[in-house]
Amino acid sequence: MTPRGQRTRAKLLKAAESVFGEKGYERASIADITRKGGVALGTFYVYFPDKQSIFVEVVDDLGTRLRRLIADSTSKCDNRIDVEREGLRTFFQFVRQHPNLYRVVRQAEFVDADCYRRYYDRFAKGYVTGLSRAMEEGEVRRMDPEALAYCLMGIGDFLGMRWVLWEEDPGLDRVLDTAMGLIRHGLDTRPAPPPGRNTLKPSKAAVKAAPSRAAPSKTAKKNTLRPARRPGRSARS
Amino acid sequence: MTPRGQRTRAKLLKAAESVFGEKGYERASIADITRKGGVALGTFYVYFPDKQSIFVEVVDDLGTRLRRLIADSTSKCDNRIDVEREGLRTFFQFVRQHPNLYRVVRQAEFVDADCYRRYYDRFAKGYVTGLSRAMEEGEVRRMDPEALAYCLMGIGDFLGMRWVLWEEDPGLDRVLDTAMGLIRHGLDTRPAPPPGRNTLKPSKAAVKAAPSRAAPSKTAKKNTLRPARRPGRSARS
Repeated sequence: MTPRGQRTRAKLLKAAESVFGEKGYERASIADITRKGGVALGTFYVYFPDKQSIFVEVVDDLGTRLRRLIADSTSKCDNRIDVEREGLRTFFQFVRQHPNLYRVVRQAEFVDADCYRRYYDRFAKGYVTGLSRAMEEGEVRRMDPEALAYCLMGIGDFLGMRWVLWEEDPGLDRVLDTAMGLIRHGLDTRPAPPPGRNTLKPSKAAVKAAPSRAAPSKTAKKNTLRPARRPGRSARS
Repeated sequence: MTPRGQRTRAKLLKAAESVFGEKGYERASIADITRKGGVALGTFYVYFPDKQSIFVEVVDDLGTRLRRLIADSTSKCDNRIDVEREGLRTFFQFVRQHPNLYRVVRQAEFVDADCYRRYYDRFAKGYVTGLSRAMEEGEVRRMDPEALAYCLMGIGDFLGMRWVLWEEDPGLDRVLDTAMGLIRHGLDTRPAPPPGRNTLKPSKAAVKAAPSRAAPSKTAKKNTLRPARRPGRSARS
């Protein structure tokens, strides 16, 4: 394809991303897309046979670009926790720049089920490779890497939806910190805390031992040492 | 409303859930819904003014029923970890019985943005109450409860999508175990593992101290004690 052809194609894809996001697949027409892209209607068919095929390419293309950005932004991280944090940060930034991402990807479920699954499966594949390596290296506790990948993807998806898409929160860093707290503890290689409520309170011995491994943050220390109060409980509301 | 009226209304809602899930909101017609429900076309208008209003009610109703089921199934749990596990299990079961749940809820983004946010916000509200209480009681580490709620909802959503909706996996318990491993460690009140790769390897002192707090599972122990190999690393793939 000529450079000019590539530019036209890119214009159509960008316009399609916006039109599908705004109108939804069913109500979007090829004429809407060419109008938005500033391209003659007939030119569309030089590049795409129909509406469905450009839709599928928009989804595949968004996924490829996002995965590439995350790979780039995390390439200098030397530990898995930093990879997760940088990956989340890059994802949030991408959502900010592509506010139609969610709407487009979620429509794929109706337009082309394969394309929809492929979007997530390709992400999961990269995660599984990275997480398995981190498990091999003893950096992350051994777990089912694909199940873990979907857990981490779900965290990113829901936080991006709530705090980037719904309302751009100046306190996004605070949200990221919470997610990373959950993830860092969650992937930790220490033995699992045993089941049951009481056992989640660390013993005095464990609290004593902790400083030898880690200088606990002020907050963490405070929580850990605070005597647990046990008022009456009722069912989850 | 008479009992008969209530039955008719319920029939319409059930039919609508199925029609919206199969055809999508745009392509679904009121005639599709009354045909599916075995109700005369004109009867529809006794209960709902238009297509959008029955759609919104389907989403609200699914959310209400799911939250109620989860509240019931977790009411006897006496610790937060069990609440999370039972909640996930109940959610998976609901997805199995309502395979159109995802498609219907995700369309809400296009049909009625308020209804879409309300669906998740109401879930989050219950979570925030329960998690805040667990934090008060020293059972769960202090974190931003709303951010944590969305993390947990994201985990459930993505696991349900991948392992119930896409393929009903006989190994769902294994997936649930992985999620619960992540969540149990993630909510743990012990001091945070410090940042950086090396620090994720527990010191000998910590490993020694561990049995005094918890009998580590065979797997966890093996991972923790295994000498970490450190082959060359490349970027996250």
